[in-house]
Amino acid sequence: MSEKIGAEAFVTRLQGWSKTADGRDAVERSYKFGDFKTAWGFMSAAALKAEQLDHHPEWSNVYNTVHVMLTTHDAGGVTEKDVQLAEYMDGIAVRLGG
Amino acid sequence: MSEKIGAEAFVTRLQGWSKTADGRDAVERSYKFGDFKTAWGFMSAAALKAEQLDHHPEWSNVYNTVHVMLTTHDAGGVTEKDVQLAEYMDGIAVRLGG
Amino acid sequence: MSEKIGAEAFVTRLQGWSKTADGRDAVERSYKFGDFKTAWGFMSAAALKAEQLDHHPEWSNVYNTVHVMLTTHDAGGVTEKDVQLAEYMDGIAVRLGG
Amino acid sequence: MSEKIGAEAFVTRLQGWSKTADGRDAVERSYKFGDFKTAWGFMSAAALKAEQLDHHPEWSNVYNTVHVMLTTHDAGGVTEKDVQLAEYMDGIAVRLGG
Repeated sequence: MSEKIGAEAFVTRLQGWSKTADGRDAVERSYKFGDFKTAWGFMSAAALKAEQLDHHPEWSNVYNTVHVMLTTHDAGGVTEKDVQLAEYMDGIAVRLGG
Repeated sequence: MSEKIGAEAFVTRLQGWSKTADGRDAVERSYKFGDFKTAWGFMSAAALKAEQLDHHPEWSNVYNTVHVMLTTHDAGGVTEKDVQLAEYMDGIAVRLGG
Repeated sequence: MSEKIGAEAFVTRLQGWSKTADGRDAVERSYKFGDFKTAWGFMSAAALKAEQLDHHPEWSNVYNTVHVMLTTHDAGGVTEKDVQLAEYMDGIAVRLGG
Repeated sequence: MSEKIGAEAFVTRLQGWSKTADGRDAVERSYKFGDFKTAWGFMSAAALKAEQLDHHPEWSNVYNTVHVMLTTHDAGGVTEKDVQLAEYMDGIAVRLGG
């Protein structure tokens, strides 16, 4: 199991992310792309990373926007697994203009 | 532009869907699949249908569940376009056990 | 590393697959779906399985058809990893009518 | 129906593409990405474009490489539809480092 680092530690390390306001130890970020196709390309690459890590986001999509919420359920908060998935997502998003 | 039929008419025609509680003329439904891979297969087929119709859902995914909200923004409510997308989604979901 | 079982052993276990004719120890199969969307839903679920297994197919797509070739490069032939990926693909394809 | 322009006209307009050697009036190109996930993100965005255009590639994927063959069947050769799809693919591929 990945060890808990907490949302505060996460947001000091990754720009663009913030602690959720729902009382959970979780982080969130929104991405905006040029259109639905680009947003979907982003999600499709990220879905492979999530399955590989066996660590899945809570995410939503409306046309060209994607909102991602990350936490690690069995650790009760944000862990290094969330950092790994977030860094992957940020890397792909930058390349796709999100 | 697709003509407005309204959420009430929609839910009498399509089983499993309900009017949203947020005051909008919109409908929603949740699907539950065996795992993330199956949920993602469903979303990938549905994404193609959405792009083909040029009509996109507001949807979210958490592991094996997919929640879909449909409405037609430029008609101010639920239209036949929402019926088309929903019928497609329901058809794929049944085959994938969702 | 997954141990080599060979194409002959594979094709006696999995219906619909055959040994390739190119001299390699490899197996192949074609799937035909109702349309491109369904073929793509199949490929999207299978892509997640491939990434999870860290074992990827050589595959091609033309509209509603998908051709898959499987072998395990570092074992020099067909292994149990190919069986795992093939069984997953066959299971999803049946549900999608392929 | 899209009017035939021919493979020669196509390859003078789009860098990186070449006429196929199989006697058909068709064009082809290969892309190479950093890994399977990136290749899949590319294909997922391109699949949406193909469905939107109702014009589909003959394409294959092996890990981080994607090979694309384009022609327009009902025109008996390469058309502006092929240009549209190819330009879209090239644009996404550049952003993903392919």
